Amino acid sequence: MTGPAPAVAAVRHAVRVDLEALMAGSDGPVELVLVACSGGPDSLALAAAVAFVAPRLGIGAGAVVVDHGLQEDSAAVAERAAQACEHLGLRPVQVRRVGPVRPDEASARSARLAALTAAAEEHGAAAVLLGHTLDDQAEQVLLGLARGSGARSLAGMPAVRGVLRRPLLGVRRAVLGDACAAQDLTPWQDPTNHPDGGGARRATVRHVLLPAVEEALGPGMATALARTADLLRADAEVLEPMAADLLARARSGPDGGDLDVEVLAAAPAALRTRALRTALIGWGAPAGALSAAHVAAVDALVTRWTGQGPAFLPGLRVGRRYGRLSPHAPTTEPGSTGGRS
Amino acid sequence: MTGPAPAVAAVRHAVRVDLEALMAGSDGPVELVLVACSGGPDSLALAAAVAFVAPRLGIGAGAVVVDHGLQEDSAAVAERAAQACEHLGLRPVQVRRVGPVRPDEASARSARLAALTAAAEEHGAAAVLLGHTLDDQAEQVLLGLARGSGARSLAGMPAVRGVLRRPLLGVRRAVLGDACAAQDLTPWQDPTNHPDGGGARRATVRHVLLPAVEEALGPGMATALARTADLLRADAEVLEPMAADLLARARSGPDGGDLDVEVLAAAPAALRTRALRTALIGWGAPAGALSAAHVAAVDALVTRWTGQGPAFLPGLRVGRRYGRLSPHAPTTEPGSTGGRS
Repeated sequence: MTGPAPAVAAVRHAVRVDLEALMAGSDGPVELVLVACSGGPDSLALAAAVAFVAPRLGIGAGAVVVDHGLQEDSAAVAERAAQACEHLGLRPVQVRRVGPVRPDEASARSARLAALTAAAEEHGAAAVLLGHTLDDQAEQVLLGLARGSGARSLAGMPAVRGVLRRPLLGVRRAVLGDACAAQDLTPWQDPTNHPDGGGARRATVRHVLLPAVEEALGPGMATALARTADLLRADAEVLEPMAADLLARARSGPDGGDLDVEVLAAAPAALRTRALRTALIGWGAPAGALSAAHVAAVDALVTRWTGQGPAFLPGLRVGRRYGRLSPHAPTTEPGSTGGRS
Repeated sequence: MTGPAPAVAAVRHAVRVDLEALMAGSDGPVELVLVACSGGPDSLALAAAVAFVAPRLGIGAGAVVVDHGLQEDSAAVAERAAQACEHLGLRPVQVRRVGPVRPDEASARSARLAALTAAAEEHGAAAVLLGHTLDDQAEQVLLGLARGSGARSLAGMPAVRGVLRRPLLGVRRAVLGDACAAQDLTPWQDPTNHPDGGGARRATVRHVLLPAVEEALGPGMATALARTADLLRADAEVLEPMAADLLARARSGPDGGDLDVEVLAAAPAALRTRALRTALIGWGAPAGALSAAHVAAVDALVTRWTGQGPAFLPGLRVGRRYGRLSPHAPTTEPGSTGGRS
């Protein structure tokens, strides 16, 4: 009797390690986990591995398929994925249709994660397992480099956040394709090439840039990028609470409100810029539109103050007066363009 | 009367901003600065800008040319660079020959920086200005990604460290080439394409990878990479003193010595891994050979202890006994291979 193909064994091993960690970290017994399955090769290989491993650990295994409704045939694709999951022996299998979202990657992603979390709650599942791979993590780092926003945008995806778990972050995508082939599973090839809706930039990173990086710097690059994400996430876990503390000290009163320049100026840049970013989002700047350059413009009001006028940001402007920073509507000058009429 | 070409104006502007910052930060008057000039386009454009700007700020401007002796014609190249600097009106101009170094990039770089610092001291110069560009900084970040060692290897070059200053970190390399052309300066084209001796990997990053990244993700990528370096350097400035403090608390006594596992285990990963890295280098592991994976193996002795044997590292092994980590020679078992006889 021969064992499973190496790719199948590798995926099952990663799933087993993760489920054992889940059990070790749980107060009571783990009764059910769900696989988030799109029908693509990554999540289909994950579903097969979970269907094999979970019962052997005494854990029930189901699946949840999110139908974004973004493509015409999305309901049929979701139905096919659900059938594949049932065929693998997963129970329960649920298709969750999410309401219409803006067709950008970030909106699709948050709608999907919310649907997965809701499914876990509804079924009493201890975890929802996602099929993100080492390649996805490496791509996140390269996309984060393009944003140029430092550790926050390079920190990639966490292995565990709330009920969501990513057991395959150490597995190359090619292994998952091999695992599907070895088990005669026919994955659906997403034309957008990404469960969250893709986007031209992500497709370029996947098909052009990451291969170019591996060609130039060696095949270990994807692993090096994923390790970079882990290390920078660990950094962020130290720096973010310190920045939150700084922000609390800089705020004028219990109501939030404006910020004390002197408190900010005494802090190191890494904490000051993080605190400012959080404050700006709290004042109404949309997180997605707020660049490092915007934050730097506000920081200049703190550290390079020469009496300059306000910093203009998406959705608001921020000025300094009497040693305090405070937000204003984008413009209030009469007759100016761009104000709300 | 027309002004200087835009490229010339841009380089002069960057130099002026930096020299003004130097003057504002100095206790006394700034009498002399030196330009580190290899004769290549970047440092030649810098030399021309300093020769123009410094006298207008009341600062004397000289140059230092480092001759590594790594190429056959290096003395002639250095002599030509020195003549170009004299022709630009820089005084004094000194060629410093550095002793034989190993022909790797890191050794050449430290020998060069030591020679520049010694030149500053000898001439009483307040600063040595280096011609590193925004492109160099972006390349550093891409090379750091290949190491996969987190913020430390992505943090790039600082704008100021000791007497060394890099006024052109915000200027693209192409601008410096344009500035040379506009001033009829004929730079020497280094066949290794890097003042520190180059290396195939750096050449690949420069000529293949950075262009591929800009092609894939947009022409703003070099700037985004350089900004990433700045942000991660700011993070490191907060985390490194915290890690040093952790290491001091984990050490057993005033003599350094072994490390208390309990103290380390209570600290967040970002500080623990930094403290361990410093300790391992202190115990004799060569910094250049010590990878994030090595540090992770030692960290596993702290956080995933199951009674496992020592972690084997370049130059030593580290074991855990009675709640303490301590170093040993690579191997002490009789009859084993690889031990010192």
